[in-house]
Amino acid sequence: MAQGRVLVVAATHGNERNAPWLLEQWRQRPQQLASAGVDLALEIGNPEALAANRRYIDRDLNRSFAPDLLQDPARTELEVQRARQLLAQFGPEGHQPCSVAIDLHSTTSAMGNSLVVYGRRPPDLALAAGVQARLGLPVYLHEADAVQTGFLVERWPTGLVIEVGPVPQGLVSASICRQTQLALEACLAVLAEARAGQLRLPEALCVHRHCGSVDLPRHGDGTPAAALHPQRQHRDWRPLADGDPLFWCADGTVTRFAPGAMTQPSGANPAARWPVFINEAAYGEKGIAFSLCVRERWPCEPGWIDALAAL
Amino acid sequence: MAQGRVLVVAATHGNERNAPWLLEQWRQRPQQLASAGVDLALEIGNPEALAANRRYIDRDLNRSFAPDLLQDPARTELEVQRARQLLAQFGPEGHQPCSVAIDLHSTTSAMGNSLVVYGRRPPDLALAAGVQARLGLPVYLHEADAVQTGFLVERWPTGLVIEVGPVPQGLVSASICRQTQLALEACLAVLAEARAGQLRLPEALCVHRHCGSVDLPRHGDGTPAAALHPQRQHRDWRPLADGDPLFWCADGTVTRFAPGAMTQPSGANPAARWPVFINEAAYGEKGIAFSLCVRERWPCEPGWIDALAAL
Repeated sequence: MAQGRVLVVAATHGNERNAPWLLEQWRQRPQQLASAGVDLALEIGNPEALAANRRYIDRDLNRSFAPDLLQDPARTELEVQRARQLLAQFGPEGHQPCSVAIDLHSTTSAMGNSLVVYGRRPPDLALAAGVQARLGLPVYLHEADAVQTGFLVERWPTGLVIEVGPVPQGLVSASICRQTQLALEACLAVLAEARAGQLRLPEALCVHRHCGSVDLPRHGDGTPAAALHPQRQHRDWRPLADGDPLFWCADGTVTRFAPGAMTQPSGANPAARWPVFINEAAYGEKGIAFSLCVRERWPCEPGWIDALAAL
Repeated sequence: MAQGRVLVVAATHGNERNAPWLLEQWRQRPQQLASAGVDLALEIGNPEALAANRRYIDRDLNRSFAPDLLQDPARTELEVQRARQLLAQFGPEGHQPCSVAIDLHSTTSAMGNSLVVYGRRPPDLALAAGVQARLGLPVYLHEADAVQTGFLVERWPTGLVIEVGPVPQGLVSASICRQTQLALEACLAVLAEARAGQLRLPEALCVHRHCGSVDLPRHGDGTPAAALHPQRQHRDWRPLADGDPLFWCADGTVTRFAPGAMTQPSGANPAARWPVFINEAAYGEKGIAFSLCVRERWPCEPGWIDALAAL
């Protein structure tokens, strides 16, 4: 593996158009991106979906990197083939090997400028802690959810998602672009510092750890019986109190929050009160009105920096 | 024509999901919609596009009602066929004839709760003035734009669009639903008053009259060279001053407003300073970053009420 090349992916989802627009600007004028001396590979994740202005063609590319799926020759969906192709070209053992993957996303949820980390790999935690120390970004830590697997960055030795919102699908917003670039530049600066032996981490990393997801109430035929309550809209990262309104029916009926009663797979945790990805347009088909997290403070470990510096 | 049946259309664009969700609620519980005694036909405009969560399948249904297009047997796109079908069923001479069409839309632009009127038909102006007097909604009056024709409501004796935003495509928002219902109920109440001989209009109707549209700066290959400037985002209905920033390049370059210099078809009007449909996601493909209006005060004419009452 070439020491240190970083894969930057835009348009893993074809209707999230801010990052691919930015990426095109950086290709034309590389000096516009402060890369901290890091060698980059800039790549469009799903060109066909981008051209069609759709999240995906056959299936969600960012749920198509599960090893079982990649190794099954019977799976020939466009996105499974594209996942194999990305790994063959930019994977750790690829033609242009990359050791780090940064995947640029946007969302209709009010996630602000945020990071998504998958599991607890030490270099991921070092990267997230370094960026959080610089910019104060919230971190959503996704793990242990059997219905949501196969994320792109999991197939690289380290990597995370930069997730910025709210912005409608299909739209370029200058402020979303600015935030995306700011977070990416912070990632690259932290990585460069780690390699130079100069990275210092804060005492602790604050994570919002995924516990499960909550669906809309639905009729027997699967159609939504209610909408998200207006008091929940754009309230990502703000903890729910017992009895807070969650869903609103057109007849005025309101469903309220009861901690521990409504999430899968680990909804019994009464501390799971922090909602994220509230009313993300793409998650309707996944049966997710929002996900619920516990907020935790994880002391930064010295080994994290070493793990990142080695990549 | 049956006296007075009103056609209410939702999902003329399949990824505008608030109105079709509401319509489904009203079908299940008609008492949830205050119809003022008006006989209604509730109809999904483009069921195929709704199922696919796309604006359209072959072409924009709300640009498919131009008489030339409808009468051309060589035009067999799904949306042209659907337009013919809607007219055959609900048109003024249809099987279930309707005299009024209300077309429910949503937008990624911050249009708030607003009305769109096409041309200067007296009953449309009566309806808009009556709703404006009740709710204060702004009115966008669209006319004389050869590149934007074939709107649904133009094929009914009277009709207008209720346009509510901002909301991402593909998403149901409770507050967007509430506003949509409020505007529709106001339309029906005004219509019922007119029929009962009880409608009183204000002295004048305030309209924002369409003068033309402004596209993003583009590279030679057609890709956008700039994004909307962040100071313009969500500033619909607020007049531009000379020199206001319009577009932002990733290198920091800013394009500024020069009145009368940039719109088509009638951009020479220096009073065209009121932007609408700013950064509507669906208008990228139409080459529209925003449209520009003049703001005018039109004294209400007594004949308007009579024209509406007759329908």
